[in-house]
Amino acid sequence: MTGFSTGRLGDLVNALRQLPGVGPRSAQRMALYLLERNPEGGRRLASAISEAIEQLGHCRRCRVLSETELCSICADERRDSALMCVVESPSDLFAIEAAGGYQGQYFVLLGRLSPIEGMGPEDIGVPLLLQRLQEEPVREVILATNATVEGEATAHYLGEQIRAAGVAVSRLAHGVPLGGELEFIDSGTLAHAFSGRVPLS
Amino acid sequence: MTGFSTGRLGDLVNALRQLPGVGPRSAQRMALYLLERNPEGGRRLASAISEAIEQLGHCRRCRVLSETELCSICADERRDSALMCVVESPSDLFAIEAAGGYQGQYFVLLGRLSPIEGMGPEDIGVPLLLQRLQEEPVREVILATNATVEGEATAHYLGEQIRAAGVAVSRLAHGVPLGGELEFIDSGTLAHAFSGRVPLS
Repeated sequence: MTGFSTGRLGDLVNALRQLPGVGPRSAQRMALYLLERNPEGGRRLASAISEAIEQLGHCRRCRVLSETELCSICADERRDSALMCVVESPSDLFAIEAAGGYQGQYFVLLGRLSPIEGMGPEDIGVPLLLQRLQEEPVREVILATNATVEGEATAHYLGEQIRAAGVAVSRLAHGVPLGGELEFIDSGTLAHAFSGRVPLS
Repeated sequence: MTGFSTGRLGDLVNALRQLPGVGPRSAQRMALYLLERNPEGGRRLASAISEAIEQLGHCRRCRVLSETELCSICADERRDSALMCVVESPSDLFAIEAAGGYQGQYFVLLGRLSPIEGMGPEDIGVPLLLQRLQEEPVREVILATNATVEGEATAHYLGEQIRAAGVAVSRLAHGVPLGGELEFIDSGTLAHAFSGRVPLS
């Protein structure tokens, strides 16, 4: 009867278990931590979750998570609007921004083409993407979808659409990661690294 | 500007990072998961946290987390009220209940004696514990504090107090865990296992 399975404590543990990477033991530890050690932090977490969910929307231009109608990247006039990088999710965008170096604009698909999940071109915003290509002076679209089967299929589909719109398309290079040791790299990556080999200048 | 460090998304990531075992990367993944994939689950989590913090109190008899004034274990008349097991935290109680086998009552210290953390006898409920020994027919108190320096010191202090009240005291056995291989066991545990060796019958 008493324990983690019933009542409000059980509800809290179950709600925490939904988080990615949180199993039953971690959820129990988190629940007790919030209740016993840090109720103030718990209240702050509850309101941070509610506020983020209710207040954060998507940028109307690039579809990244944003508190404002136009995100800070789209609103930044110093960025190169002739370059557009297409990513699957906001976290991909944040990873590229954290790496630094890219100074163009973005478009976030918020998903990938996936018949199984019922995700078609409309769902990943292809009409909005093509509209931007017509209205803005985009010279090149860099497809930075994931190197998964669905990410590749999405890149292939987008590539055809964008080329038909008369804009140059490129795909992120696949190959051996920096610091990667050949003996530990999967054969698909190795094959890509061979076929995409670059002449030494 | 855009990213995980500022605004409502940054607030959410920081609030998630307070949870035990959650680093910056996991917090980012959790935040995006709640916002992009499962806002409904996020709303449920926020209200589960708030409700648990506001509504859960402590049992007035054993001090475990409880929605009712008397927890379900204290209210269970089938349990042996002559046995009292003293644990540091509600999670210890839940672990013992999950293991099964123990049919007595509990007392939860909600901490341990710790001069560094400013935890004295009053803070861990010693007066309430001694009062229960006077009012209830407790025959034996089992000290199940952790096998840490502070847990041992707490057990030593409680042992003296309880013996002075004329009640038998015992301590959980220390030794080689089931399935434990001697070569991987620390020397303190091994020394305990030797000094606490049991004659084969």
